[in-house]
Amino acid sequence: MKSLLLIVFSLFSFSVLGQTKPYLSLADAERVYESAAAKAKAEGWNVVIAILDDGGHPILLKKMDGVQIGSVEVALAKAKSAVFFKRPTKVFEDAMKAEGGSRIATLPNAVGVEGGLPIFKDGVIIGSIGVSGVTSAQDGIIALAGVEGF
Amino acid sequence: MKSLLLIVFSLFSFSVLGQTKPYLSLADAERVYESAAAKAKAEGWNVVIAILDDGGHPILLKKMDGVQIGSVEVALAKAKSAVFFKRPTKVFEDAMKAEGGSRIATLPNAVGVEGGLPIFKDGVIIGSIGVSGVTSAQDGIIALAGVEGF
Amino acid sequence: MKSLLLIVFSLFSFSVLGQTKPYLSLADAERVYESAAAKAKAEGWNVVIAILDDGGHPILLKKMDGVQIGSVEVALAKAKSAVFFKRPTKVFEDAMKAEGGSRIATLPNAVGVEGGLPIFKDGVIIGSIGVSGVTSAQDGIIALAGVEGF
Amino acid sequence: MKSLLLIVFSLFSFSVLGQTKPYLSLADAERVYESAAAKAKAEGWNVVIAILDDGGHPILLKKMDGVQIGSVEVALAKAKSAVFFKRPTKVFEDAMKAEGGSRIATLPNAVGVEGGLPIFKDGVIIGSIGVSGVTSAQDGIIALAGVEGF
Repeated sequence: MKSLLLIVFSLFSFSVLGQTKPYLSLADAERVYESAAAKAKAEGWNVVIAILDDGGHPILLKKMDGVQIGSVEVALAKAKSAVFFKRPTKVFEDAMKAEGGSRIATLPNAVGVEGGLPIFKDGVIIGSIGVSGVTSAQDGIIALAGVEGF
Repeated sequence: MKSLLLIVFSLFSFSVLGQTKPYLSLADAERVYESAAAKAKAEGWNVVIAILDDGGHPILLKKMDGVQIGSVEVALAKAKSAVFFKRPTKVFEDAMKAEGGSRIATLPNAVGVEGGLPIFKDGVIIGSIGVSGVTSAQDGIIALAGVEGF
Repeated sequence: MKSLLLIVFSLFSFSVLGQTKPYLSLADAERVYESAAAKAKAEGWNVVIAILDDGGHPILLKKMDGVQIGSVEVALAKAKSAVFFKRPTKVFEDAMKAEGGSRIATLPNAVGVEGGLPIFKDGVIIGSIGVSGVTSAQDGIIALAGVEGF
Repeated sequence: MKSLLLIVFSLFSFSVLGQTKPYLSLADAERVYESAAAKAKAEGWNVVIAILDDGGHPILLKKMDGVQIGSVEVALAKAKSAVFFKRPTKVFEDAMKAEGGSRIATLPNAVGVEGGLPIFKDGVIIGSIGVSGVTSAQDGIIALAGVEGF
């Protein structure tokens, strides 16, 4: 019986599963947002939170009252960097600090300030979250709370 | 006497002197969104809904599952046109259709497709809503439902 | 036995298949390109051919010898319009011709010249092809040959 | 007599009048790509490879499956830097590391990350290759394999 199921599975994996990739739905994005926003509110931090799909296109964005307007584009840029390069913006931040320079800043869409995190599912990138409004370390804490809520 | 004047001044500074403008809070934007999204869901229309502040900066954006990615920038552009020009994008659409030309298309940030509406409070512009994803007439119906929910 | 398989399938569809979407691989894009290029060569038409993924990011681009350099960005723009709006650029061309105006030109990323086609799989958008270099009608013929080769 | 003059003119047009520059054809670019891609596949490295003409315009671009989407623009930027400045991006990388600063980053189109190489023929620049997707040193190895295949 077990081998029968395996055979069925094998057939499915070719004929039904086909060539597909997981994706982030609006419901997923809302769950990520709620988790991030809950952390932000608990700490009393007002921020912009942006959640992008795997192509770098916005699925959800909210700007809390009183946050600097510049944070809208910063949150989007951090999220874009995270999904474009499949890594936290903190990785670029650390590399740029270590070098003491701006070599990485010459790469299109790379952001070297903490607060952007990629979102993976089954090892495949499906989107990202970007946060801006408080210190970059605090932005990073909120972004992490978002990913953990996924 | 001096203290009496101070008290009078204090009252004025809040009620009369107070030079303020009304603004759209995130809570307001969420109410506008919920009202617009309720109409969209009731009709079975999947769309992107964007809500901007009085400076044209996004407060809230959500993209429902399956909507064409082009609608993200279109919803933002419609909303931007509405708040930048304090009028519905339908006004530009009608004018462009009447002229049969592209004169208005040369105005920076003007969009000539229905689906963007300004949001006023006490006669003052405080933001806008932009919708994209179905026909422009349907986008307009959703946008109107949003403004009515405010 | 049939019902057992159906149950197995149902379980798979929730637990294994999960929330996924089809995508365009480089091998797919090469097949689309070869089919389009074969048509172009048979007609003696030199063009740029661009193939994008579902997020509008290039997977494959080739510029044949002697084609005007402007066609590189035009092919990319046509393909971007097709995948961003899930429709051929010919649809915008026809609408703009019918109106005799440029209302649609105010929509970000919309291109109103034939030669861009979306690519669907199982009803889901997975990418697009854009062609530029000869007349827009000829560009469209090449693009169609590409999609048919998929 | 007239035919004699024509012959003389014909000779001039090739030997004396002929003011030409060598250029990179699509067939050349495909050879460069194949050589670079063969090295990448041999190492198991998935990358984006972009090949530009002497004006910095793309002739060929391919993105292998699963490569971060940010690598599309990075590969193009590296190749652009290489052809715009007639030198490997590694030269800027070394200079920026040596200075520990961002002076060179203020030069338009300069990229300070290895992986972009100019392509010369008879001492004349005819194009470039840019690679992105693995480490910058590995990107450089692939780019070199491409140039060597020319």
